[in-house]
Amino acid sequence: MRPSEYIAVKRDGHELTREQITTWIHSYTKGEIADYQMAAWLMAVYLKGMTAKETSALTDAMISSGESLDLSAFGHLTSDKHSTGGVGDKTSLILGPLAAACGIKVAKMSGRGLSHTGGTIDKLEAIEHLKTGLTTTELLKQVEDIGIVICGQTGDLAPADKLLYALRDVTATVDSLPLIAASIMSKKIAAGAHNIVLDVKVGEGAFMKTIDEAISLASMMVAIGSDLGRNVVAYITDMNEPLGRTIGNAVEVQEAVETLKGQGPKDLTDVCIVLATEMVHLAKQIPVEQAHQEVTEALASGRALHLFQQMVQAQEGIWDEQRNGPKMQSAPVEMQVLSRVDGYVDTIHALQLGTIAMELGAGRVRKEDAIDPSVGIVLQKQKGELCKIGEPLATIFARSKEDAKRAAQEIVKAIDISTSMPKLLPHYYAKVSPSGVERIS
Amino acid sequence: MRPSEYIAVKRDGHELTREQITTWIHSYTKGEIADYQMAAWLMAVYLKGMTAKETSALTDAMISSGESLDLSAFGHLTSDKHSTGGVGDKTSLILGPLAAACGIKVAKMSGRGLSHTGGTIDKLEAIEHLKTGLTTTELLKQVEDIGIVICGQTGDLAPADKLLYALRDVTATVDSLPLIAASIMSKKIAAGAHNIVLDVKVGEGAFMKTIDEAISLASMMVAIGSDLGRNVVAYITDMNEPLGRTIGNAVEVQEAVETLKGQGPKDLTDVCIVLATEMVHLAKQIPVEQAHQEVTEALASGRALHLFQQMVQAQEGIWDEQRNGPKMQSAPVEMQVLSRVDGYVDTIHALQLGTIAMELGAGRVRKEDAIDPSVGIVLQKQKGELCKIGEPLATIFARSKEDAKRAAQEIVKAIDISTSMPKLLPHYYAKVSPSGVERIS
Repeated sequence: MRPSEYIAVKRDGHELTREQITTWIHSYTKGEIADYQMAAWLMAVYLKGMTAKETSALTDAMISSGESLDLSAFGHLTSDKHSTGGVGDKTSLILGPLAAACGIKVAKMSGRGLSHTGGTIDKLEAIEHLKTGLTTTELLKQVEDIGIVICGQTGDLAPADKLLYALRDVTATVDSLPLIAASIMSKKIAAGAHNIVLDVKVGEGAFMKTIDEAISLASMMVAIGSDLGRNVVAYITDMNEPLGRTIGNAVEVQEAVETLKGQGPKDLTDVCIVLATEMVHLAKQIPVEQAHQEVTEALASGRALHLFQQMVQAQEGIWDEQRNGPKMQSAPVEMQVLSRVDGYVDTIHALQLGTIAMELGAGRVRKEDAIDPSVGIVLQKQKGELCKIGEPLATIFARSKEDAKRAAQEIVKAIDISTSMPKLLPHYYAKVSPSGVERIS
Repeated sequence: MRPSEYIAVKRDGHELTREQITTWIHSYTKGEIADYQMAAWLMAVYLKGMTAKETSALTDAMISSGESLDLSAFGHLTSDKHSTGGVGDKTSLILGPLAAACGIKVAKMSGRGLSHTGGTIDKLEAIEHLKTGLTTTELLKQVEDIGIVICGQTGDLAPADKLLYALRDVTATVDSLPLIAASIMSKKIAAGAHNIVLDVKVGEGAFMKTIDEAISLASMMVAIGSDLGRNVVAYITDMNEPLGRTIGNAVEVQEAVETLKGQGPKDLTDVCIVLATEMVHLAKQIPVEQAHQEVTEALASGRALHLFQQMVQAQEGIWDEQRNGPKMQSAPVEMQVLSRVDGYVDTIHALQLGTIAMELGAGRVRKEDAIDPSVGIVLQKQKGELCKIGEPLATIFARSKEDAKRAAQEIVKAIDISTSMPKLLPHYYAKVSPSGVERIS
């Protein structure tokens, strides 16, 4: 078929075969299909959708366009986790060590943040001297030695996805569920883990705005995983409000460490235990209750914290033995945001806080922007807590007084205060597995 | 707005303003918008459509992307005609001289054929030494001197359309009514005539397959013309069967000359008189009956034929005074296709005959192919005529016996023979003007 015929099939809402999709994607990766032809195809897919078969074939074609990490030496004990991105989402830093402390092999390749959402690699790099750029050999050795690594991508995984993502970014074709599902799953499957737990965030601070949309995306990803021989389970979790009390890089690592010490906020701790339990349950094929017990024990005993320390040190990060935490820079300016009224803290708008943190320098407006690991926001109150006039609502860590003042003005607008106790949102809305969708209410 | 925002507006089915469309198209013409962004936009337009306002704005932006021919010296007496392309469609060669003989100024820039449909410029070039590449000065002088010119495009008319068409051709976005309408009208309006008669062909040998689709396209073009200050009328004419008895280049020119001598086939003569009458009626603002009378008189008196001769000679083509026709090469091989049964000639399949003629060398499979002006097909019988076993159905003009034999086998399959008199198709289905659609039955 000529390139325009592949485009016409999707334009007319028909199905391409697995072989056709493989040829199409591999030809594009080799430069035999022009960007403008792929762009027209992507828009047709955006507007006409793809079948489950096509989405799985697209994922597979993107995987086979490059290398895959071979974790077969660890049998089926490997578990990975992916979050679709949120504000204050530091769960990887906590559940990775939790799962590893239960004997799971965690080889996690993470990404950087973009827009108002943070990236795990940016967070880890807040730790002084910590190295996230490992070779495949270094990565495998660290998994072998201590059971866990969190680093940037090693090897040339799913290069077709990289090319396609760059093209989607400039052609208004990012927000397509099958394209998002195939993009995430191609990277996750190429990263080698046998078991994958997905955290699909939903709400104003997430890319998915409705629960139905999040369930659709989760179902697609679970179906792709099953089709390509992986165990995949997805949780739909809330991202209307930030997770935990911190937004930024050093402040989030600090909160992760506190959570691993058993002193983290309840919402964050809960989510991490649930997702880590799923990772252990899937990989060890043990009942959920038993997995849950192992995870809570790994937390209570301090073994998960110790594994986090081992990971930081294995990646050359500096551990402050006195404070029993990683060494990180503190921001030059610290400013309190005080409440101007009496009342209950109601909605804490995740999107707005994520944007304020980004503007402080914690995130990137453009891919090429540098970030400042020391800046960020710590919420002194969470939803449902009482606050009085003059009590601190949040603490800002900034590069300058001007930055802090600007952020303070915005933060006041981003936190609703109510005269009555607000209704708390659930942390989870649904669980999606190969056996179906289980709504949690 | 960023380029991806223009794309997103159409992707989401919203309307772009006139200013936004102008910016978008002019930026693309200047190379400031990437082909992949325009390709995504074109696919969004293909699948979501455009409003009448947007289609007119797109046409206007394509016109203002380049030069326009200034025919203002001729007042409102200028008339142009455009056909959406058919098989055996030599009407321009006949109605141009007919209208010019009534005092209309005809500055017609024509195109070349592609696929199974012919192009007027290719046909004219069958005349020995005839020049179709004129300068703007030469064109204007010829209109001034004799009232008619038919040549290739002069000047850089609607360069945005040229760029967009090339991109549409390789991104499966050709068959979009608003894009087709804007493309045709941008070239026609830039070509300067105040009055434009459109011949929208419908049927198996045309690009439009249904009457409704043809009426939609015609209505869009008439609306664009009105919006941009031109008088535009469109006829929906039949293209299930070839127009007249000839398909090819020299054979079609020969048939046009015979028609101008009053000896052409009835279907072709009728269509030319109707369209020429419309051109005269629009330009001279006289009643249709009067225009019709002027046109038939121009034909009967031989003045139209004389104008054709003047045009050929002005463009350096050779006129054979003895035969009173242009000098053209004849094909080396001539072969009769004989009927194998007794009966009435029923459907003569236009698409198939167009394709057979193209394969003989009368048309181009690819843009870069050379054509042979001497090859083609002459139908000895038209629909409804009786034919007996052994009587000639058609004559083939070919480059070789092999070509002719292959064509003969195909022609027999492309002409249905029936035992009873078939129902003849109308030549026109509808007329579309700014005041509405008038169905003709």
